[in-house]
This record gives sequence, structure tokens and C-alpha cells, in this order.
Amino acid sequence: MNDHAQPARDAFKRAFQLLDKHLQREAERPVADFAPPAELAARLDVTLPEGEGRDLDAVFDRLDQVLDATPRSTTTRFFNQLFSGRDPVAVAGEILASAINTSMYTYKAAGPHALIERALTDHMCKKLAFHNGEGVLAPGGSLANFCAMLMARDRAVPTYKDHGPPPQPLTLYTSNLCHYSIPKNANMMGVGRHNVRRIETDHRGRMLPDALDRAIQQDLDHGAIPFFINATAGTTVLGAFDPIDPIADVAHKHDLWLHIDGCLGASAVLSTEHRHLLDGVHRADSVCWNAHKAMGVPLSCSAILTRERGLLFDTFNQTATYLFQSDEDQFNMGTMSIQCGRRNDALKLFAAWLHHGDAGYDRRITHLFDLARHAADIVRQDPHMTLSKDPESMTVCFEVDGKPSDDLCERLRRDGLEVVGFAHVDRRRVIRLACLNADATTDDIDRFFHHLRQVAADCPGGDNAVDSSASAAPSDSAPTTVATPRGRGAQ
Amino acid sequence: MNDHAQPARDAFKRAFQLLDKHLQREAERPVADFAPPAELAARLDVTLPEGEGRDLDAVFDRLDQVLDATPRSTTTRFFNQLFSGRDPVAVAGEILASAINTSMYTYKAAGPHALIERALTDHMCKKLAFHNGEGVLAPGGSLANFCAMLMARDRAVPTYKDHGPPPQPLTLYTSNLCHYSIPKNANMMGVGRHNVRRIETDHRGRMLPDALDRAIQQDLDHGAIPFFINATAGTTVLGAFDPIDPIADVAHKHDLWLHIDGCLGASAVLSTEHRHLLDGVHRADSVCWNAHKAMGVPLSCSAILTRERGLLFDTFNQTATYLFQSDEDQFNMGTMSIQCGRRNDALKLFAAWLHHGDAGYDRRITHLFDLARHAADIVRQDPHMTLSKDPESMTVCFEVDGKPSDDLCERLRRDGLEVVGFAHVDRRRVIRLACLNADATTDDIDRFFHHLRQVAADCPGGDNAVDSSASAAPSDSAPTTVATPRGRGAQ
Repeated sequence: MNDHAQPARDAFKRAFQLLDKHLQREAERPVADFAPPAELAARLDVTLPEGEGRDLDAVFDRLDQVLDATPRSTTTRFFNQLFSGRDPVAVAGEILASAINTSMYTYKAAGPHALIERALTDHMCKKLAFHNGEGVLAPGGSLANFCAMLMARDRAVPTYKDHGPPPQPLTLYTSNLCHYSIPKNANMMGVGRHNVRRIETDHRGRMLPDALDRAIQQDLDHGAIPFFINATAGTTVLGAFDPIDPIADVAHKHDLWLHIDGCLGASAVLSTEHRHLLDGVHRADSVCWNAHKAMGVPLSCSAILTRERGLLFDTFNQTATYLFQSDEDQFNMGTMSIQCGRRNDALKLFAAWLHHGDAGYDRRITHLFDLARHAADIVRQDPHMTLSKDPESMTVCFEVDGKPSDDLCERLRRDGLEVVGFAHVDRRRVIRLACLNADATTDDIDRFFHHLRQVAADCPGGDNAVDSSASAAPSDSAPTTVATPRGRGAQ
Repeated sequence: MNDHAQPARDAFKRAFQLLDKHLQREAERPVADFAPPAELAARLDVTLPEGEGRDLDAVFDRLDQVLDATPRSTTTRFFNQLFSGRDPVAVAGEILASAINTSMYTYKAAGPHALIERALTDHMCKKLAFHNGEGVLAPGGSLANFCAMLMARDRAVPTYKDHGPPPQPLTLYTSNLCHYSIPKNANMMGVGRHNVRRIETDHRGRMLPDALDRAIQQDLDHGAIPFFINATAGTTVLGAFDPIDPIADVAHKHDLWLHIDGCLGASAVLSTEHRHLLDGVHRADSVCWNAHKAMGVPLSCSAILTRERGLLFDTFNQTATYLFQSDEDQFNMGTMSIQCGRRNDALKLFAAWLHHGDAGYDRRITHLFDLARHAADIVRQDPHMTLSKDPESMTVCFEVDGKPSDDLCERLRRDGLEVVGFAHVDRRRVIRLACLNADATTDDIDRFFHHLRQVAADCPGGDNAVDSSASAAPSDSAPTTVATPRGRGAQ
């Protein structure tokens, strides 16, 4: 081993020893050690040295303390987010990616990793029956949705990217249960959040195609430029799947871009049992798909995929001679990306997919649905609990009757038993149990409900109705609005 | 060790063993094995299994082949990008972050990592004399610049985010040598690339404040809404620093948001010798600063920092009850971020900064400048080479007289000697030597020039003039344009 490599060898060895210790500890400790920020800051010094730094022993001691204080999202007691658990092979891929530090803009810099990213997005396109499709990884699902919205804008108003907005307002359509990135992106792209139409949903939380059609027609009648329909495959709270085929009919009728926000649910195409939820997805113009959710790879790994090639390039290409300079343009993925420098989010998914194969993911996704079904059955059979809606996929929303959902979640966390979150459904505050950990079994679900009943017994009663007149009305279940388009001069 | 942890332990051990092998090999192999994509694809199978997956031996064999074929950006022969080398402690931090898989939106999910991100951005603010400042990490410098542009938009036109554009066009200002993300972001935010004014630069590549002032006045006279000035601290090609104080005077005169794109050069505030290049930075409204460039942490680690608190929240906050639900709002960094789910880019910089301290970074940044100075001296003393401009910081642009720069770069890469890129300066194609690897010494610079002379001897003569009438005019040195604002209806 030469001199140059020795410091790396030493530091990596320390990292692996610490990881080994952490794995041991992780299994023995509560899922989270509750401490408010001020209390945690008092016992964990995170200040940085103004003068000389600390030696390796001191640095790794501090990192050890940090790891021990970290909420353990990798365990089967973490139901709080739309990711949970750990795929060791994916993490191994991520570890290797960290050490080789490849930037993914050009083939010159990325070499085989450019081929890998392309192979992954091609494989994902194939699963969606995008036979002439392509894709690129984006830094998270919100920005993957953003990419789709910009491509749609450029199709509707090709001069927008150079000359700015046309006189008429642009309008876009999504269900009232969509992810918050849709209105946020409308803000960021300059279309304006008030030009987002939130379409009504049915009893399962699925967008109503007729209401969508009417909203588009109303905007057309007012002289707006409708440009984008978002259908969600796996809504954030209820896990509902908007019906793609009838929505695609509406998109086709009005010649609008149809995007599928499949951050959570696109992975269902890998499940033989559940892929019917995405019937019609091949008719969409774009899909985003987060492998860091149901597929369990480390954060983040989000793909934006298009049915036709060249659309990402048309929207995101920007000449930069100092960067894009070799002759392998189809592998210079930076020209299709919202980013310039791009970390390597591909290697971890490549490693995991090689190991699991399509067959392994088929079993995995089906298992996650089964866990949610098991949880829903427990709620149905318990006379003291109420299911919010029949779950369509991997999240289960419910209440313990007469007990405030937020208080229950907080008690589970404070006692270090389980980490789970609450959400709003039909103006009620409910517990959202996210079943995204493939290591979990029905025993873990049973244990969760055992703990929940335990804290519920001690919890004072209270109401879960959300006051609709409250100033902080929850946007994750905001009322349907089909407003008149707001155009220029609104300031 | 319990059952649950054992698969992780095994996979991590394999990753560590492969890394050890890779470190050994990295020192012995050429910086890059040149192969066009088709050739590489023929010898490296990156297809994914449609059925069952591969066992761990097969997966790690494949990963081994991938690592071996990866351009070695971590070595001292890689001068191609504005990052190079490897900080082992930072990589150790990244390895740990990969394994704990923390999402950084809320304190509930991130715990100590929210404190760490805040401590890092507070420390960076302090270095910039932003005494009431704050910041957040963004997924790369392009998007960090984008965040600044959106905050500036919202200050100029507070109704924009809800209601969309006003009738008048918005205009923004940057030098003709700025990073390509500025016009790209103007596209993405819907302002339009033609409303970006590219201001002239001086003989060192620095924006001319008088020309800036005139361009703003001209747009005001035409009824536009100027909203944003970008000054670059360390331009992408020349490493030039726009003069902040006189530009801040212009910004103050017209009441415009002043942003410093310090992706490359903000780190110079850590160098006692070179921080004068950023004199006046405390007057800026925002700064972006990439720790993955001159500070050497793995990709990506980009901060967007503001002089005043609350501005990031005002632009990016979007209610989401299911997510932002605990009472530690100042540590719910997702409310200030362009992302929803956020990978942990903080731990690696925390580990590195603990280890190096401000004092270590002072030495590091000064060393990088010294390397560039050494390279510039070599060029000056060689009668067969011409320096493009006196370098201000860490990049050196020059030509070998009568030899095409692109051909020379390609020969160095094909022979596996060095990886370096070319760029355009004053309509000439030049070699851009980026001195960003803190492990490099003057011996490495000497070796680079030895190899360059070697390939130059075999290289046919040719001209480096860039045809200004060519259809693909290079935007990284585009001619100054002060156009009439293009408003609505341009389509």
C-alpha cells in the first residue's frame, strides 16, 4: 500500500469498525431517543473548531455519539416516512460510490457509471412500456416532478424558456391529495400556486376524471393555457392510485402533457399482483419513480422518465464548452439534467437490482402491500379503531377512537417504542402507518399495534376533527378549488 | 450480532475489502482507461436481470469491474473538474451517512443531523460575516443559485409565487463568464434566457460595475423589472472574482438582490492570504458555496446562505401536515429547502471540518492557489506556451502554441496520462488546468507539464481560434449582450 492510500485505508477502517458497532447497537436500542433540539445540543457538541482541528480519535468519538443519537430509520420500528429499513447491498453500492466520487454529467468523467445510469433508466422505461423512452436521475422526487412540469411547459409554449411567459396564465391539474411539490413547483417555475387546480377525489382518494375534464374546460373558456396534468400513483398520505387510463383520455382530448407522480407507487409495476394499479401508464408523457421509497435503496434515487426521447435534452440542455466536450453525447447525461455536478445515485440501485433481479422486487413490493393489508385488517377488527379509507397500497390511515392521533404518535416516539406520523384525511387527524420496510414481518405490525394500544390506554381523550376555519388549514387535504385563472397584473 | 444485522455486516465487509483492493489498484493504474461507450459496454455487462438476481459473489465481482473502469477523479492526475482528490475523513462521514440513511427534512427524522446542518451553515455564515444569516444545503451549486434567484424574484414581485408573472419582463444581470446555471435557471424559473444580461468583463475576467449599472438603467428605461445581480466568486473557466464592493454599490443604488455564486471561490474566505478576493461579501443578500469543490468533500455539498433569516422559508415553505408536525420548526430544514426528501450531505462536511478545523482549511485553500501559481509560472517561462490571462485563483488557462487544445487533452486521456479539459477564453480554445486536489504537490504539476510536452511533440499543428460565426457559439465565453428586454407575447 503506498503512502497516498494509507490515510484513506485508516479512515475507512475506522468507519467500518464504527458501522459494525452501530449495527450491534441499533438492534438493542430504542428506535429513537427523544430529546428536544436544545437538550440534544447540550449533550452533543456539534460546533466546529475555529482554529486547529481534532485528531481522528476525537472525530470518530464524536461521530459515534452522533450515530447513537440518530433516529433509527433502518429498523422495523420506523413507520414514519415513505422509506424504512436498509438494503445492505444497496448501501454497499453507495459506500463504493462515496469513495470513488464520480460526477455524473459526462461520459469523460463518469465512464461506466454513465452506462449504468442509462441501463437503469432504460430498464425502468421497459417496465413502464416506454419503448422509445429515456430518463435521468434527479435529486429527489420533488425535483423530478419539477422536470416534468418544465418539459410540459416547453411543449405548450416553446418560446417560454427563452422569452418568458406568454400573456395568458398557464394552468395545471392535480388531485386535492397530491404531493406538496406540485404547488411548490408551480411557485418555482413561475406559473403561480393559484393556477394549480386541485381536482376532487373519490372515496378511495383517487382523482375524478370527469371533474378534471370540467376544470380544464373551464380554464379554456377563461382563456388560460392548460399545460399539465399530474396523476399520482401512490398518494403521500393514503397511497391511492389515480386511474391513469381515463385520465389519459382527458389528457388526449385536450392535448395536455400527462405526468405520473409515481415517487411512491411506480414501483408497483414490478409486482405481478399489483401492477394493474398502473394500467395505462404507457400512455403518460412522463413518470417519476423513487427507488429510495418502496425499493429501499438509500436516499436519494429518483428517476424522471419520458415516453419519448429528446424531451429532457430540449428543456435542460445549456451549452457549456468547458464541460460537454467529448463525442459521446448520448452518455453526457448532464445535458438532460436539472443539475450540473451530479453525485452518483446510480451505483447503489445497480448493485441492488443486480442482486434482487426483477423477481426479487416483485416479491418485495407484494410483501409491502401484504403488510399494509395485515395492518388494515387489525384496524377493521378492533372495535376501538376506525380505518380512514380502505388502503390501496402501502400506507394505512386510521384513528384510535377518541384519542388524538398527534398525541399518540408523540407518545410512541417519546417512549422510544415506534416512530410513526399523523396526517389529515377528510379533515380528521389520523395516524399514517407507512409499510415500506421489507425486513418487517406481520409480527412487527402486531408489535406496533400492541404498543399503540399501550400508549392509548394512558392517553387523555380528545378529538381528531381539524377545524376548517383554522388559519393553518392543512394543504395535504385541502378543499377542491376550481378557481378562475389568475393572470398578469395580479400583484 | 443478531440475525437482522448479519446481512448488513457481511455486505459492508465485502464493500470494505473491495475498497481496500481499489485503493491499492488506484495508485498503480492510469488515471483513466480510455474506451468509447460502445467498447466499454461490450466488455462490461451492465444489464439488469429480468428474472432472479445474482448472488453476492457475482454482484461484488461486477462492482469490482465497474470500479476498475472508473476514471480516477481521486488521484493527482485528475485536473478535469473543479473537484479532485479524496478527503478520507469526509468519505468516512459519507459512508456512515449512507448506512444510517437519514432524511433531512425534519428534526423528528434527522435528530442530531439537523443540528449539524445548522451548525455548518451557521459557521459558514460567520465566515462571510452574515451575523444574522442562515442557510441550508441544496443538491448542487446550480440549484443553490436557483434558490437565490427565486428569493430575489419574491422580493421584487411578492405576488409571483402565488399569482404568476407580472406584465413587465423581469431581467437579471451576470457577467459574460458566469456559470451556465444562471441562464439555465432563468429558463427554469420562467423569466426566460433572453432576459439574462451578460455584462462585459475586464482583462482578468471580472465583471465591470459601470457596464452593469448601464445595463440595469437601460432595462429600467424600457420598463422591465430588474431583480437580481449575480457576481461570481471564482468563475468556472478562469477562476476570476467579480469585484463585490463596487457591484454591491450598484445593487444598492437600484435596490437589487445581490447574489454571490461562490460555488468555486467562496472557500477562499477560509484563506488568510486570499480572503480579500471576497471583500464586501457581507453586503450580499445570498451566497452559494460548494464544499465539494475546493474543500474536497465528496459530491455533493452545496450551501445556499442568506444574509437575513427567514427568506428561504418565505420562498420554499409549503404546508404539509403529514410531514412537518413537531414543534422544532427552526430545525425542520425541509421548510427552507427546494427539496422534500433530502439526503444527508452534512455529515461528511461535519467530519472533515472537525478534523481540519478552520486552520486546516486555511492551509488547504492557500495550497491550491499556490499550485495554480506554480503552474502559471511554468507556462510563463515556457516559450512555446501562452497564458490566457493571469490566473486569480485555482484554475490556469493556457495554450501550447500552434497545437489544438482539444486534441492535446484527448491525447493525454487516451494515453492514460492525465485527465484535463479545454475551455473557451476570448474565442480561443485553451487548456483549463484545475488545481483542486489538496494532495497534489508541485511535483504533480511538473509531471503534468512533462506529459503535456510529450503529447504535444506528437500532436499535429492546428489553430485554437474559435470561429465566431460557428453555429455552436460557446456560451462559456459568449459575447456581451445588452439587449432590449423581451416581454410577453414574444412567442
